[in-house]
Amino acid sequence: MSETLTVNKNLEQLAVDTIKFLSVDAVEKANSGHPGLPTGAMDYAFVIWNKFLRFQPKDPRWPNRDRFILSAGHGSMLLYSLLHLTGYEVSLEDIKNFRQWRSNTPGHPEFGMTPGVEATTGPLGQGFANGVGMALAAKMLAARFNRPGFELFNYTIYAICSDGDMEEGISHEAASFAGHNGLGNIIYVYDDNHISIGGNTNISYSDDVQSRFEGYHWHVQKIDGHDRAAAEEAIRNAQAVTDKPSLIIARTHIAKDAPTKHDSSAAHGEPFGDEEIALMKDALHWPQEPTFYVPDGVYDVFHSRPKAVEGEHSQWRNMLERYKAEYPDLAATYESMQERRLPDNLEDVLLDAGLELDTDATRGYGGKIMNIAAQHVPGLIGGSGDLEPSTKTLLKESTSIAKGDFAGRNIHFGVREHGMGGIVNGIAYGDFFIPYGATFFCFLDYMRPSVRLSALSHLQSIWIFTHDSIFLGEDGPTHQPVEHFAIARATPNLMDMRPADAAETAVAWAMALEHKHTPSALLLSRQKAPALKYQKPRDAKGVRRGAYVLQDAPDGNPDVVIIATGTEVYPTQAALGLLDGVKARLVSMPSWYLFEQQDQSYKDSVIPPSVEKRVAVEAGASFGWERWVGVNGLKLCVDRFGISAPLKELQEHFGYTPQKIADRIREYLK
Amino acid sequence: MSETLTVNKNLEQLAVDTIKFLSVDAVEKANSGHPGLPTGAMDYAFVIWNKFLRFQPKDPRWPNRDRFILSAGHGSMLLYSLLHLTGYEVSLEDIKNFRQWRSNTPGHPEFGMTPGVEATTGPLGQGFANGVGMALAAKMLAARFNRPGFELFNYTIYAICSDGDMEEGISHEAASFAGHNGLGNIIYVYDDNHISIGGNTNISYSDDVQSRFEGYHWHVQKIDGHDRAAAEEAIRNAQAVTDKPSLIIARTHIAKDAPTKHDSSAAHGEPFGDEEIALMKDALHWPQEPTFYVPDGVYDVFHSRPKAVEGEHSQWRNMLERYKAEYPDLAATYESMQERRLPDNLEDVLLDAGLELDTDATRGYGGKIMNIAAQHVPGLIGGSGDLEPSTKTLLKESTSIAKGDFAGRNIHFGVREHGMGGIVNGIAYGDFFIPYGATFFCFLDYMRPSVRLSALSHLQSIWIFTHDSIFLGEDGPTHQPVEHFAIARATPNLMDMRPADAAETAVAWAMALEHKHTPSALLLSRQKAPALKYQKPRDAKGVRRGAYVLQDAPDGNPDVVIIATGTEVYPTQAALGLLDGVKARLVSMPSWYLFEQQDQSYKDSVIPPSVEKRVAVEAGASFGWERWVGVNGLKLCVDRFGISAPLKELQEHFGYTPQKIADRIREYLK
Repeated sequence: MSETLTVNKNLEQLAVDTIKFLSVDAVEKANSGHPGLPTGAMDYAFVIWNKFLRFQPKDPRWPNRDRFILSAGHGSMLLYSLLHLTGYEVSLEDIKNFRQWRSNTPGHPEFGMTPGVEATTGPLGQGFANGVGMALAAKMLAARFNRPGFELFNYTIYAICSDGDMEEGISHEAASFAGHNGLGNIIYVYDDNHISIGGNTNISYSDDVQSRFEGYHWHVQKIDGHDRAAAEEAIRNAQAVTDKPSLIIARTHIAKDAPTKHDSSAAHGEPFGDEEIALMKDALHWPQEPTFYVPDGVYDVFHSRPKAVEGEHSQWRNMLERYKAEYPDLAATYESMQERRLPDNLEDVLLDAGLELDTDATRGYGGKIMNIAAQHVPGLIGGSGDLEPSTKTLLKESTSIAKGDFAGRNIHFGVREHGMGGIVNGIAYGDFFIPYGATFFCFLDYMRPSVRLSALSHLQSIWIFTHDSIFLGEDGPTHQPVEHFAIARATPNLMDMRPADAAETAVAWAMALEHKHTPSALLLSRQKAPALKYQKPRDAKGVRRGAYVLQDAPDGNPDVVIIATGTEVYPTQAALGLLDGVKARLVSMPSWYLFEQQDQSYKDSVIPPSVEKRVAVEAGASFGWERWVGVNGLKLCVDRFGISAPLKELQEHFGYTPQKIADRIREYLK
Repeated sequence: MSETLTVNKNLEQLAVDTIKFLSVDAVEKANSGHPGLPTGAMDYAFVIWNKFLRFQPKDPRWPNRDRFILSAGHGSMLLYSLLHLTGYEVSLEDIKNFRQWRSNTPGHPEFGMTPGVEATTGPLGQGFANGVGMALAAKMLAARFNRPGFELFNYTIYAICSDGDMEEGISHEAASFAGHNGLGNIIYVYDDNHISIGGNTNISYSDDVQSRFEGYHWHVQKIDGHDRAAAEEAIRNAQAVTDKPSLIIARTHIAKDAPTKHDSSAAHGEPFGDEEIALMKDALHWPQEPTFYVPDGVYDVFHSRPKAVEGEHSQWRNMLERYKAEYPDLAATYESMQERRLPDNLEDVLLDAGLELDTDATRGYGGKIMNIAAQHVPGLIGGSGDLEPSTKTLLKESTSIAKGDFAGRNIHFGVREHGMGGIVNGIAYGDFFIPYGATFFCFLDYMRPSVRLSALSHLQSIWIFTHDSIFLGEDGPTHQPVEHFAIARATPNLMDMRPADAAETAVAWAMALEHKHTPSALLLSRQKAPALKYQKPRDAKGVRRGAYVLQDAPDGNPDVVIIATGTEVYPTQAALGLLDGVKARLVSMPSWYLFEQQDQSYKDSVIPPSVEKRVAVEAGASFGWERWVGVNGLKLCVDRFGISAPLKELQEHFGYTPQKIADRIREYLK
């Protein structure tokens, strides 16, 4: 049978068809998945992977490899087929286990699950933005480390984007950012297949994508996506344009060669069915059996590319060794950044600095501590969504990145929180950098999908959310977070930290930097947060454990445990002074995530199960607080939207002055 | 002094300057706010409000009024100044109380707080999308009610959009939708002032907005935003283009005429300061005192427009009366829709239908119930984010809206969840329609800002979220919601409803339709949900109270209360059959929102405080469940991200088969 095949087709076509049938067979066996994209995108995808992509399956994290992102993650079988065929650790057995329990071929690509998967995709538009972050990281690495004769970093980001990616707002934000910053190392193919789940895309979508992307200052080309020569030429053109990102609009037909399902929405996200597959295999002179068939010679075709890159790869490794000799200081920074290494005493350095700071808002402490941390952590970079002055997140000793100048550490993301989220994650997918992104806590909403993916993908993305309660004041309820504490804390693997003063902020920053596989949400205030009164000067190290006893009943045997977070700790501590005769323990609880990781005995030592009277003080939704104060606890929380008014009015009316807090606790204890 | 002024300026210029100084004075007095936009946008804003906008302050909800939306809500003083000067119920005293406790002039415009404010804005891009929804509603109303000689609906949506609005992804989604559907009744001005909080916009933003919007099939013009004649001409041009939305790019200078702060980011969001204001007033020959000064004749200028519209307004009211005589059936529908009236027995109609349905997923029940509801509720319209087949949200008896044809009830929002959110809210801001928007529950994340605003603005937006747990299966953790129950429930004023079967789904739909000032989140499953075993056939009416006893211990005196929601109720009821000797009560709790609104005695009757052994069964984050089961309760929840695998594997491994549920409960009761 394979003889018949080679008679009729050249090997390249066989290779392309193999992508198609592996995908179709896998979706069929799983009885679930999206065969549409892999059966339309295989031609230009083959061109990328066979003629251009610089990769080495033996060294999948080679720092200067090109990145390939399947932003249209639902077409995951395209990627798994390519990974298998090119020699990554994805076996034919893995392909057969597509979408099964504990397989490394999950429904959508998941970073960390499958060698060669560069980013978790599926939620549309995320991969598009991740790629922009990766491209920016490449430019920033080049600016830091490349030297004459040592072009350590010059990699390119390839991605396949679907109609859905293009329709999502995040693609606008990320594309605008990429064009503005002239990220010429981006080559994206837009798979213009006219088909979506709901039917032909023309029921809802008719953008002139070329005009749109030219508006972002991208270089745009249009090709027939099944013309491999045209794809090759277009990619070469794109490579030649180094000051603009490139978009190649590839008109394709999904389920190409499937007799009844081609160009149909039925082919988008459902198995083709036995009959259709049989007809399709016939049409392409493909054997009906075995399924998951890889014709002779096809592996060789796919392996030819990594083989061709072998020389370049080993030259690069050699260059890096020479670099170490020639530029030992830079090389030391390189190695330190690659491991995201921190000075051993970083926490103490930050805490010492924090203990010296004058009274400020926790956002102010955050900015100052971050600036000190940046002196010791060269990989720390980031910016905000056009809120630098408000979030206090400018690295003052550094410049800002801009088109053609990527030596700085400050990134101006613009009013593009979602784009920022995807770009920060894209940077974090690489090693080397520890990126942060900042906005108001309420606007976590604008970037939730990216924050969630940072947690799912175990990225060290540091999210800085300032203006963390109704006490931001006059901007009013549209800007005042209420339910957002619950949102942050309910998200698996997201490290919430709401420090109360400068010392706690210092330790929180240390934790954010130490956790290499956990994103942080630093929740910081607009209003002033005076220093707490500690029993011992360095008690703020209790942040490490999520919660700790800040002040105890004189005999260590409290009648009531009062738990406060962030800016509510200080007035609560002041309230204790107004509660004569009450044996109260005050617990500062900056991080639920960290506290929940402690063993039960520590938890019980902070919140003794025997003490039933408990109080929570936090200016946000009470949702979730029963976990710590029980169903009969008192929750001094805000279970409504806020109000536009000056801080003092809000503190008074919502009951957060020391006197009001004390009154409410005394009433509860009656 | 006023004599000097009229010598130097014509009245129109005085009127324009009044907007400017009212805004500057108010921000100064509040010592908080954004003077930048009102001191740059006043010229063309004046033109809109003085020459074009069709409004009547005496009849602020006149159905055929033009809508004006300040999408750049931070410039709220521009809007409040206009509302005051044109005769809305916004007094000079209100202006002086800008941003103060309980004033009707909050930091950002809030719907329902201030007459004449059409939408809550501030979170950027929302107003942009709301206007698209309003424009769509206008077209859909016209298609339903206009008849020859009776053009009841032909209103136009005006909006002012800032750089931030343009940068946000939601503007892409909504603009693409508006262009695709040819919403020619949109006239937006983009205030192109080059200044953002972080500095000049060119640090992060350089889109060719014209090219971008032409890519969306908009009609685009560019003007000098301070040239009022040019603004007038551009708006006339825009009105003449009826098959495309219009964008007018108006180059403006913020803090115009402020000697040191013009065109500066310092003027964007901070008070100018006494000195600058004094200089600015001098420069424009404006009296230093009194502040909040309105020169003689200026009110007349502003009142001239509503006066000019008076005739049109009363003609319209007369026309409506004649319409009632001419088209009594249509007029009856008009009145019913305007009040969003429901048949008295709607709940029973839906419940009867629900009790007849064959076993399906709750998404399936949802689709069927919704289709029945639509027969009785003509204002029910909506669609999904390219997930019609998956969310089961097509109204089968109706067509889809499309460019030039707005008679249908189905809206194809495309892969644009955030745009959908803003558009649905825009429709809901009007009366007449009850709009729904559907996507997967996990992608609530993509539209969180709009969902939050629907709750803040008390809109009857119905959010349908299907695929509501890890049990959607193979799509894996990127698509499997976990923390989203907590997100929905922690949001104030959002009615969560997770029905367990067809009967509960029917009652949930009735509740969604009955609540005219509360958005709903209907959480529906992908997997099958067989009918519960009720004690009495219509027990599912318990949904109205949020939670109810589905099955009790034989003596009504349970040892354990088990609370389940949605698709977890059925296997939990089955598990009870495996728990011989355990006196268990099973509570179905479809809605926390509704249950929390019940009085304490009802709550205690469902979950008796005396029963300390309690169990929660819900395939989502346990976060928040201590509220009902206490700190020592058993939570059969999912406190991790999900896994890509078939349903049965997930049920087995995550422990949600009846046997596993029974085993875990028995273990707990030991």
